[in-house]
Amino acid sequence: MDETPARPASPIGLTYVVAASQILGLAVITVMAAWIGQYRGGVAWDSSQLLFNVHPLCMVIGMVFLQGDALLVYRVFRNESKRSTKILHGLIHFFALIIALVGLIAVFQHHKNQGFPDMYSLHSWCGIIAFGFYLAQWLFGFYIFLFPGASFSVRSRYKPQHVFIGAFLLILSIATALLGILEQLLFKIKDTYNLFVSEGILANTLGLLIIAFGAVVGYILTREEWRRPPLAEELALSMDFKNLTEEGSPTSTH
Amino acid sequence: MDETPARPASPIGLTYVVAASQILGLAVITVMAAWIGQYRGGVAWDSSQLLFNVHPLCMVIGMVFLQGDALLVYRVFRNESKRSTKILHGLIHFFALIIALVGLIAVFQHHKNQGFPDMYSLHSWCGIIAFGFYLAQWLFGFYIFLFPGASFSVRSRYKPQHVFIGAFLLILSIATALLGILEQLLFKIKDTYNLFVSEGILANTLGLLIIAFGAVVGYILTREEWRRPPLAEELALSMDFKNLTEEGSPTSTH
Repeated sequence: MDETPARPASPIGLTYVVAASQILGLAVITVMAAWIGQYRGGVAWDSSQLLFNVHPLCMVIGMVFLQGDALLVYRVFRNESKRSTKILHGLIHFFALIIALVGLIAVFQHHKNQGFPDMYSLHSWCGIIAFGFYLAQWLFGFYIFLFPGASFSVRSRYKPQHVFIGAFLLILSIATALLGILEQLLFKIKDTYNLFVSEGILANTLGLLIIAFGAVVGYILTREEWRRPPLAEELALSMDFKNLTEEGSPTSTH
Repeated sequence: MDETPARPASPIGLTYVVAASQILGLAVITVMAAWIGQYRGGVAWDSSQLLFNVHPLCMVIGMVFLQGDALLVYRVFRNESKRSTKILHGLIHFFALIIALVGLIAVFQHHKNQGFPDMYSLHSWCGIIAFGFYLAQWLFGFYIFLFPGASFSVRSRYKPQHVFIGAFLLILSIATALLGILEQLLFKIKDTYNLFVSEGILANTLGLLIIAFGAVVGYILTREEWRRPPLAEELALSMDFKNLTEEGSPTSTH
């Protein structure tokens, strides 16, 4: 009825499910901190034993919680400009990368202090692949979508790949976290794990919480009605672009 | 030009990527068989040691390869009737369930023979959740989509949930397989795993192959242009239904 229609509010269901994802994410960090504090002596950079504990804490904050939250910004900030939302998305991923890097340095330094070999386990293989691709995805994403930014046509062709790789990396990071939890349990409490000791139950529960966080984030991202609707000006722009390209090239079959 | 237009062929890209998924899936089974055969004494139901090996082999065939392939049928059989494709989808999941059940019986029987406790590890927790939900999803899916089959309106509301849970269960099954591989390595070769022995490298490679299989299946399923196009008669039917429901109920916000 009006020239500048009011932007629709977020769907109510979305608000509740996003709240659930944040409660789960904070529960993951809290339970990880509780495991480290209660059973593993806490965290300290200058103790060769406690240095290790920096690793799981940082990885779960960076590669699970923040990585997941960065994917949600387009659903949560529905009425901000695309560019602000994009910058926030890149910024959260940047913090995730820095925190994960600290976690990585901690574990390599711990191995060095103790004379342990690096990179032999399935956990380490998955983790280094996840981190390496995550860094590459960030750099590519920054270059193509933010600065200097590629042409519309390159962006729109790269975007589905960026989204797919992003989802894959969150899933791989979660799987790597689960592998890390199990590995740590079998290193530290191998003889009592099968007696259902409380440390084992706590760490298993942590694993399930991480899975639940990933599942809720995945649900938010895949629900069609919860996609960010394009703002009026973006719609006009993309229609112009669509007409331009459809006139320029015939539709291809794949 | 014609009343019954020729159905479009599968996109060429799809054919190659489906072929890649099948090569990866068969590689997963082959490498698992090689690990068991070469390093773990092979498979036998009547040996209390070798009975265990039935478990990983069956789980990888059922919960990884067949479960993944069942999701691909709508992309691969694009020009068959929806009903035939649905029956094939249900049938492959049924075989997957039966094979996984054999694998489950094998591990519980092995634990019983050896006096090992059940269900204490993160691998077992994830696995039982994956199998339980997989069975429930199959039963619900059969009841709602095949026999007796729910109303159009219930089906179309349940379908996105069915698809989301299906994707989640394949991912959870893959994560569980990775946990199983790592657990087995830390049980059997804990002291030499960090020396990069060939068994460790083979089993880690198996883990990466499973991840690659999942990634390729996920890529096929999420690529928008590769969705199964509705057949002409399905389109007519769903348009009728759409008109019917849109007249009947106002659009809701979530």
